[in-house]
Amino acid sequence: MKVAIQGIPGSFHHQVALNYFGPQTEVAPYRTFEEVAGAVASGKVDYAVMAIENSIAGAILPNYELIDRYGLYIFAEYYLPISHHLMALPGQQIEDIKEVRSHPMAILQCKKFFQQYPGILLQDDVDTASVAKRISEEKIKGVAAIASKTAAEIYHLEILATDIQTVKDNFTRFILLQKDFPGLKEVPEKASLKIIISNEKGSLAKLLTLMSDFDLNLTKIQSIPVMEKPWNYAFFIDTEFDDYEKYKIALKAIEEKGGEVRIFGEYHKGR
Amino acid sequence: MKVAIQGIPGSFHHQVALNYFGPQTEVAPYRTFEEVAGAVASGKVDYAVMAIENSIAGAILPNYELIDRYGLYIFAEYYLPISHHLMALPGQQIEDIKEVRSHPMAILQCKKFFQQYPGILLQDDVDTASVAKRISEEKIKGVAAIASKTAAEIYHLEILATDIQTVKDNFTRFILLQKDFPGLKEVPEKASLKIIISNEKGSLAKLLTLMSDFDLNLTKIQSIPVMEKPWNYAFFIDTEFDDYEKYKIALKAIEEKGGEVRIFGEYHKGR
Repeated sequence: MKVAIQGIPGSFHHQVALNYFGPQTEVAPYRTFEEVAGAVASGKVDYAVMAIENSIAGAILPNYELIDRYGLYIFAEYYLPISHHLMALPGQQIEDIKEVRSHPMAILQCKKFFQQYPGILLQDDVDTASVAKRISEEKIKGVAAIASKTAAEIYHLEILATDIQTVKDNFTRFILLQKDFPGLKEVPEKASLKIIISNEKGSLAKLLTLMSDFDLNLTKIQSIPVMEKPWNYAFFIDTEFDDYEKYKIALKAIEEKGGEVRIFGEYHKGR
Repeated sequence: MKVAIQGIPGSFHHQVALNYFGPQTEVAPYRTFEEVAGAVASGKVDYAVMAIENSIAGAILPNYELIDRYGLYIFAEYYLPISHHLMALPGQQIEDIKEVRSHPMAILQCKKFFQQYPGILLQDDVDTASVAKRISEEKIKGVAAIASKTAAEIYHLEILATDIQTVKDNFTRFILLQKDFPGLKEVPEKASLKIIISNEKGSLAKLLTLMSDFDLNLTKIQSIPVMEKPWNYAFFIDTEFDDYEKYKIALKAIEEKGGEVRIFGEYHKGR
């Protein structure tokens, strides 16, 4: 079993793969989300892990677009609490650190911690784990990384300070992907959908009224910006429900009214 | 007059500042969007330019959140066609280039172009313009940047290939910010709003029905993920309208029904 992740070993995607599939999981690291989606679609890997909400990995919207374009299936979601740790070469003390490098978002999330160390220069870098890797491989002294516990373990760095992020209960939502619909093993309580509706006045209001009438609870709605055709009326929607049969009837009702529904996945609620 | 931008001179934000305010505009470059928002709020700069949709600058959602948190005002929007150019030190030919460095999104957008140059290694970097700057300052041969025309001009690089992005009509939407409500000079046709509604069944459907009844056309809707309180019913909404008076009555009606409305800005439609 092989799981595609975006980023190098030690990234948050890697952490989710280990947490979900177990500590022996073989991961296949890819540079971009596009390559991750391609690896699943071509069968090079069995599964993939992809950040989808509140991510430090950059834009979120393009990932739903990738799932759409590559025709992938979401079979689970996973919420990872984001823990940032400060790490450097073994033996280094925090007083030795002149520079900290990490992803801009990780730096932002830890800004308060560094207020007590005004002598430390904060520098943007491509991501969190690759800085840890570089410090380790090139034996760079005086520089620390902000990264995950897994990164510290993999690259044999020493953690100088744990949980240095300002907001302590910061979760990132990840989704787990595979190529084909795996068949439902359990009754799902959540679904990710793309719904296209006709470009008429009030059509979104009507769609949501219908969903509400069938007791579908929206947890996320995102209009898709199609610059060429302003307000093309396409949406990525996540919805939760207690009654799977009622949910299926609702989808049928949407289609009968001219809506186009594509199911990205039906799965258990995470956490 | 001073305009805050995210990124270094030569970035797409810089380009928008020049296009909107004129070629003599003095820009104040900041590392993060948070710092840009802070600079406007503290009065250090007069205006700011911020990418908000379909951006290569990373996540979009946090920027509405920043406008909300810093209490800034959107007074205009601007659509910039994204043109990527390949540039290197003067005298270098495309045959001399062994490596291209840029923002991952810019690389992705130009992937097709590089299929004809399989010998060129594509490498992620922090952003587009900073690579151009580094090549220029450190006189790096054999490496090219993917960046804007402005970046080539500022850093005295030679453009080896123009408009190398796969999709030719790729626009990024920027907003223009200032600290206080400037007073309306013209009747606006567009507004950016944050609306919070009660957590009751079908409340979003009711809100959108009301908006539709008052002829407000939604161009963007985005639920705000509040991880701790799933479905806290807060939305960022952009809406267009023909009748400003009717729009104001609609906002009043939303508030009368218990909705909370915060106006991020009322402005002219861009382009």
